[in-house]
Amino acid sequence: MTTGDPLPTTFVPRHVRPGRRTAVLLLSCEDTRGIVAAVADFLARRGANIVEVDQHTDHHDGLFFQRVEFELDGFDLEPEQVLPAFREVSDRFGMECELRLPENVARIGVLASRQPHCLLDLLARWRTGELHADIAFVASNHDDHADACAFFGVPFHHLPVVDGDKAAQEAQIVALADEAGVELLVLARYMQVLSEDLVARYPHQIINIHHSLLPAFVGAKPYHQAYERGVKVIGATAHYATADLDQGPIIAQDVSRVTHRDSVEDLVARGRDLEALVLARAVRLHLAAKVLVHGNRTVVFG
Amino acid sequence: MTTGDPLPTTFVPRHVRPGRRTAVLLLSCEDTRGIVAAVADFLARRGANIVEVDQHTDHHDGLFFQRVEFELDGFDLEPEQVLPAFREVSDRFGMECELRLPENVARIGVLASRQPHCLLDLLARWRTGELHADIAFVASNHDDHADACAFFGVPFHHLPVVDGDKAAQEAQIVALADEAGVELLVLARYMQVLSEDLVARYPHQIINIHHSLLPAFVGAKPYHQAYERGVKVIGATAHYATADLDQGPIIAQDVSRVTHRDSVEDLVARGRDLEALVLARAVRLHLAAKVLVHGNRTVVFG
Amino acid sequence: MTTGDPLPTTFVPRHVRPGRRTAVLLLSCEDTRGIVAAVADFLARRGANIVEVDQHTDHHDGLFFQRVEFELDGFDLEPEQVLPAFREVSDRFGMECELRLPENVARIGVLASRQPHCLLDLLARWRTGELHADIAFVASNHDDHADACAFFGVPFHHLPVVDGDKAAQEAQIVALADEAGVELLVLARYMQVLSEDLVARYPHQIINIHHSLLPAFVGAKPYHQAYERGVKVIGATAHYATADLDQGPIIAQDVSRVTHRDSVEDLVARGRDLEALVLARAVRLHLAAKVLVHGNRTVVFG
Amino acid sequence: MTTGDPLPTTFVPRHVRPGRRTAVLLLSCEDTRGIVAAVADFLARRGANIVEVDQHTDHHDGLFFQRVEFELDGFDLEPEQVLPAFREVSDRFGMECELRLPENVARIGVLASRQPHCLLDLLARWRTGELHADIAFVASNHDDHADACAFFGVPFHHLPVVDGDKAAQEAQIVALADEAGVELLVLARYMQVLSEDLVARYPHQIINIHHSLLPAFVGAKPYHQAYERGVKVIGATAHYATADLDQGPIIAQDVSRVTHRDSVEDLVARGRDLEALVLARAVRLHLAAKVLVHGNRTVVFG
Repeated sequence: MTTGDPLPTTFVPRHVRPGRRTAVLLLSCEDTRGIVAAVADFLARRGANIVEVDQHTDHHDGLFFQRVEFELDGFDLEPEQVLPAFREVSDRFGMECELRLPENVARIGVLASRQPHCLLDLLARWRTGELHADIAFVASNHDDHADACAFFGVPFHHLPVVDGDKAAQEAQIVALADEAGVELLVLARYMQVLSEDLVARYPHQIINIHHSLLPAFVGAKPYHQAYERGVKVIGATAHYATADLDQGPIIAQDVSRVTHRDSVEDLVARGRDLEALVLARAVRLHLAAKVLVHGNRTVVFG
Repeated sequence: MTTGDPLPTTFVPRHVRPGRRTAVLLLSCEDTRGIVAAVADFLARRGANIVEVDQHTDHHDGLFFQRVEFELDGFDLEPEQVLPAFREVSDRFGMECELRLPENVARIGVLASRQPHCLLDLLARWRTGELHADIAFVASNHDDHADACAFFGVPFHHLPVVDGDKAAQEAQIVALADEAGVELLVLARYMQVLSEDLVARYPHQIINIHHSLLPAFVGAKPYHQAYERGVKVIGATAHYATADLDQGPIIAQDVSRVTHRDSVEDLVARGRDLEALVLARAVRLHLAAKVLVHGNRTVVFG
Repeated sequence: MTTGDPLPTTFVPRHVRPGRRTAVLLLSCEDTRGIVAAVADFLARRGANIVEVDQHTDHHDGLFFQRVEFELDGFDLEPEQVLPAFREVSDRFGMECELRLPENVARIGVLASRQPHCLLDLLARWRTGELHADIAFVASNHDDHADACAFFGVPFHHLPVVDGDKAAQEAQIVALADEAGVELLVLARYMQVLSEDLVARYPHQIINIHHSLLPAFVGAKPYHQAYERGVKVIGATAHYATADLDQGPIIAQDVSRVTHRDSVEDLVARGRDLEALVLARAVRLHLAAKVLVHGNRTVVFG
Repeated sequence: MTTGDPLPTTFVPRHVRPGRRTAVLLLSCEDTRGIVAAVADFLARRGANIVEVDQHTDHHDGLFFQRVEFELDGFDLEPEQVLPAFREVSDRFGMECELRLPENVARIGVLASRQPHCLLDLLARWRTGELHADIAFVASNHDDHADACAFFGVPFHHLPVVDGDKAAQEAQIVALADEAGVELLVLARYMQVLSEDLVARYPHQIINIHHSLLPAFVGAKPYHQAYERGVKVIGATAHYATADLDQGPIIAQDVSRVTHRDSVEDLVARGRDLEALVLARAVRLHLAAKVLVHGNRTVVFG
């Protein structure tokens, strides 16, 4: 079986959730009187049925955030008309806004290095229909994962860094992502530092998993650092990649208790489960349009 | 120092949160189109600034739940006018609705038996200003807690069950609660079964803490049962009291891991911390008007 | 690729931990004076270096449990001589004892039904070297997992129940297990009730995963039950299979918090992660000879 | 009621656990062959019944740690004779060893500043018999806690830092601790940095609670730092005080999940519960002689 072969028949991906076609408006602006009513009124006048509203007021910074999910059936506007028409509201409140169509199957590119656990976990979740997305490709600076990708029916690209020319390799990644129309890059324990250019090209569209409970143990070998410090809790952190390594907005974190009995190797093994779970959680939240970024922090309507 | 003495000066209760005066509308009805917009419009037309909206659609039962918190300053209506005026909306959608004024300091009655941990925890939280409520009285079928209540400056009433006449004792509790204008009764490990009459008198206004992760280990001695069954996780459950013992709507639960090293006594000791924490969490959620009951389930806007 | 094909080259199973060859003595007896010294002395006189000792005294039942791991290098006895020689100690204290050789790669048979998550998780852990065992075969009453087993290089057997003749199907399982020299059967969400005969044939050698925090929600559809009861915590339980369904000694449990937002389908999805993790934890503990059974309870030297 | 008044009668401290009188040997040395047998043999020859053994081999550093709890009844030696006699073993293996008598009620001094939660929690646990210790005194650089200490029946000393002379204030603390024969100083959110001299005087006998999951957010205002960084998990850390602030060996840690909805004030409030629980856990472990220090790490036989 080689890369690109047809899917084995074992799994049937369930990409498209049965049920209602919905759109999501993600809004943020300075907090003031009347926002909720203005948004609700805009939608109601055009026949939208609001399925879910989440909102948050950051009293510290005086900011307002909202996620409104509404049905497209019965709505007077086509998706491409929504934001232009909505300017009657968004201009009034100085809103940043984004329209997301979770009914659309997002296209994901996954970057991996040697370690298989986060990659296999994502592929298995995708295959069992848990990720509402298409994994358009897996690329790696190593050639380890060709068979696994073939089994799961995902194109695999071996993109080594040749002669230290990382720019050339990144250009290949961008070409792949562009061609595939990728909306999200997932770094599944991808051990290469991305250039500022690449990060800037995908603002809040690259999710990384760091194997510590950031901001503890930034940088290399966090489990070794955790062992040396004698902590009783380890963790993993999924965050959007930014130019500052390990400093991007945190989407999800989780922890595991450890004891003196756990060697560095044990921490690494325990960490694998954490990393896979936390990364999958962050990817799911992003795909469901439940994450808004605000400076270096996130609002996660979980 | 005897019951009723003036407060010691150590603590200054901070009952009233500084800041905006707000009201909360709790709504539920069959799910249909236009509810969100109708509610937002009703409030906006009367000058209300919406501070927080939480809503939930139970697709399983086709029900809609909403909690809307809005500022009273600038609002055209007095609190007592809100529900009558809101009938233009609530009648249209067949809503059950309730207006809560969290700015008002709720009055709580606490019932305890011998064990002090949940009671002391509540009193300490109240004294450090964490509970936005007045503890109007503590009553107990034992006389153990007079000194503690005196220290914390809360009236204590010893209400033993005399000659097995529980009805007479319950009448005393009701008299106390009525006189104090109590809106919430907290059973802080109160080891008496309440009569159906008493429970019916305070629908969803009595919070009990059960020392297991219900529905596991209903009935007596749950830690002994947990020990016998060899579980690796114990828990505690705060729920509204209903006529069916241990069957009421669950508000909050939490757990603690245990091992074969934990004796029954260890489980009891671990459980004390869980019970106090889970009960306090449930009381805080109730006081903040964040719990809606739906059949035997709760919607908790945590 | 068909069942039985050679392993793809992506993964290199690391079955055999580098380092010292060790044996484990698992002991239990009535608690009395001098046991620890007698065991330590027996081993020391024969040149054993004790690597790890865990012990537990159950004061409730007056029982003593010990796990002693010692190096075989430098030890005077061959593995098969240990228990006979140890009778000088075990007879004196009326011990039940068992010798386990974790350095030996245990052979495991896995039974699955339709759901892939626990099976895939076990196979991935095995392939990344995390399970110190050989997966000798996977058998299922459905034919879904042939491709996955082929990819992971494990023989797959489709053993449907034909004409309701479960005895015939179980005979096939036993034949497979006998032929493969299996020491542990793992029920990876195997949805068939095992006969008393089969269970009795593998005492404390069959590990099942139940998708609830036993003893809550025994029987069918526990997530539906959990949803109906409105719990705020769900869990999974790995236990040794016994003739009484869902009643066997619990090895491991873990939990996940849920809210009113979680539909039954959400609970099922959250539960999948729990089930895979808890089952893997139990299998690892069993393989490391860290579980002793005592009535319906376990001593787990985690 | 003033400081020093007799105890109110509400609680009966249960300082002395019923049951067997036991001693604990805490040992550490380089890992080598025969240690376990030598220790067990030493005790057995003198008639000791070993109640509990915990041991740990740190393969990374080649070190061996052991905790042996044995009954004093039937033992040939008086407590003061144990270590001298044990030199036949400890000299041979180059052991550091310590004898602890958990049956003795340890004497504790508590230092607090303004915040009451950790102090009240410790006092309540002591009064309900959960801490196997006497709280000899509470001292504070503020005078807030006199009433609380009076209620709980513990002497309170107001020791302000006068004219910035911290040395003078520390001398008062030392005088109090010496007079009371204190074996453990607990810093219950004591907001003063201790001098190196004071720390050196009580090696591994001062337990501090830091309100973050160290090493994240060292220094001041960790909840503000956590809020700014947008973490999804907060924690608390109990550690032995060393000359390097926030750098001492960690005894216990625990965590709580937070979201974007949690303001700094919410983190502080959530943190209070964590701090009290983690500090109490660390104090209990220390009192039970279950903590060995090894460089900057701990072995905790929990």
